[in-house]
Amino acid sequence: MELTESHRTALWDVLNWRRDVRHFRTDPIPERIKKTLQAAMDLAPSVGNARPWRVVEVVTPALREQIIANFEGANEAAGEIYDDDRKQAYNALKLAGLREAPLHLAVFTDHAPKAGHGLGRQTMPEMLNYSTVAAIHTLWLVARAENIGVGWVSIFDPQSVCRTLGVSETWSLTAYLCIGYPVEVNQTPELHRRGWQTSADSAWIKA
Amino acid sequence: MELTESHRTALWDVLNWRRDVRHFRTDPIPERIKKTLQAAMDLAPSVGNARPWRVVEVVTPALREQIIANFEGANEAAGEIYDDDRKQAYNALKLAGLREAPLHLAVFTDHAPKAGHGLGRQTMPEMLNYSTVAAIHTLWLVARAENIGVGWVSIFDPQSVCRTLGVSETWSLTAYLCIGYPVEVNQTPELHRRGWQTSADSAWIKA
Repeated sequence: MELTESHRTALWDVLNWRRDVRHFRTDPIPERIKKTLQAAMDLAPSVGNARPWRVVEVVTPALREQIIANFEGANEAAGEIYDDDRKQAYNALKLAGLREAPLHLAVFTDHAPKAGHGLGRQTMPEMLNYSTVAAIHTLWLVARAENIGVGWVSIFDPQSVCRTLGVSETWSLTAYLCIGYPVEVNQTPELHRRGWQTSADSAWIKA
Repeated sequence: MELTESHRTALWDVLNWRRDVRHFRTDPIPERIKKTLQAAMDLAPSVGNARPWRVVEVVTPALREQIIANFEGANEAAGEIYDDDRKQAYNALKLAGLREAPLHLAVFTDHAPKAGHGLGRQTMPEMLNYSTVAAIHTLWLVARAENIGVGWVSIFDPQSVCRTLGVSETWSLTAYLCIGYPVEVNQTPELHRRGWQTSADSAWIKA
């Protein structure tokens, strides 16, 4: 299929308006949309077509409380590395939307998937994790196109999340996603607006 | 910005028609398109807005030869783990397009970026690699929308690629991308058509 200018324009709109969302409304995500998000992940590239992502939708309130406690402990420890000004800035950031987001997805990578027959990952076994990341990014873009926000929270003790959710020993945590309708829509990322980090140039050199 | 049905339709077209391409025409990628691909990466999510991806466009023929030799050695070793039937299937796969693809990008992750101030990666330092993967996936989708093919080659000794290209000690190889106009456009992935691995269901469970 030859893709056209209208595809390019639409794709750039999605990319330009994708944000990492931390402020959610509490109204639920319809089941239909959850199916759409799952189908989106299945269109992601994966090494050897291994599809190693494993998704746990965390719905049990007691489990969510353990996840939140894990985040709060890791977040407090993370703030300790900064000097006074930066620590104040750190503490002013809202780094999760765990209490408000209606949909919580813990996304794991299975390091022993049957699918794929090991193709493409003998010298770079991290390709399995990378496949899961591509699936998460695909979900993120499709969510944005549905006007739904996604926040990728990484301030956790990841092994503890695995224990809380009782997952297989061959799985590791890749991401914990907060998903819901955003409170506001803004083209400028919150880390820019709050003065944490604007966009630095990234290298593209020739050799 | 409220995204619409036309955005969703276009995005799904891009996702449905993105392939991992290994068969390239040799005509060059215009400079304008390279700029577009670079701009696409800059729209990817990154932890703390650290933007840790570092891109080396490999143009020097002698360096390309070293990369190809690296691939060939790793590929031969990789084939050794299979029994006879699977080994035959492995050897029949075309796993790179290194000789034909006009554009080679070695994509690295900088593990000591100044940007981001360490935000979001104290307990999960692999978030830097994951940011680079999101940037690669963004490039891939934008390339597809330009009717350009991308092949992610992972059958390398990654440290050896770093040495060949003489990159900083703080960089690790995340991906080696072959990029060019595809010889053919097919909605069915080559691994399906060649019987290596069809799509297995991926888990989405509740806890």
